[in-house]
Amino acid sequence: MSASQLDLTFHALADPARRAMVERLSRGPASVSELAQPLAMSLPAVVQHLAVLQACGLVASEKVGRVRTCRMQPAAMSLAEQWINQRRTDWEARLDRLGEHLKQFPHGEPT
Amino acid sequence: MSASQLDLTFHALADPARRAMVERLSRGPASVSELAQPLAMSLPAVVQHLAVLQACGLVASEKVGRVRTCRMQPAAMSLAEQWINQRRTDWEARLDRLGEHLKQFPHGEPT
Repeated sequence: MSASQLDLTFHALADPARRAMVERLSRGPASVSELAQPLAMSLPAVVQHLAVLQACGLVASEKVGRVRTCRMQPAAMSLAEQWINQRRTDWEARLDRLGEHLKQFPHGEPT
Repeated sequence: MSASQLDLTFHALADPARRAMVERLSRGPASVSELAQPLAMSLPAVVQHLAVLQACGLVASEKVGRVRTCRMQPAAMSLAEQWINQRRTDWEARLDRLGEHLKQFPHGEPT
């Protein structure tokens, strides 16, 4: 598992404007101006956020004529998802072991 | 959904040392020195990372005597997990719609 890939992905997701862009792109491709429309920020600011999303691989873009179209790349998101899922697995395994341990004392903890 | 809570949580997870601490705590509570042991950093640096993990609610700690014990608080992680899951749901719904659309052209895309 690439640590720096996760660093970049979680960093990219730590900003509300970038999450809004990912939310939009999860529903389908969009041009840069479509991404910018609901955000109260300049086009250059949107392009900077887009660069962060592209650097971690969450988003790819392609320019045809004068329009740059952006698309989600779900693999980078899957890495982040897997990391969180593994923590939940560890956590739940720990609760299971704790439950098994407590079953040894059906009338409460030993005094 | 609290945007700033997600900002803090994803920011906290964007650092490899903090992820290592969360990985350790997902397997059970640990003292600050136990958390520090596998990390090649000073105790004050670990305490600073711990403060970031506590600020977003991923970790809680309690001091008894001279020992501070840290525990995972899974609710903050769940928020991040839910946000990622929702993106996957949107993404998969889009692929389903695309599949339904393409079924209308059983012999390939219209020319």
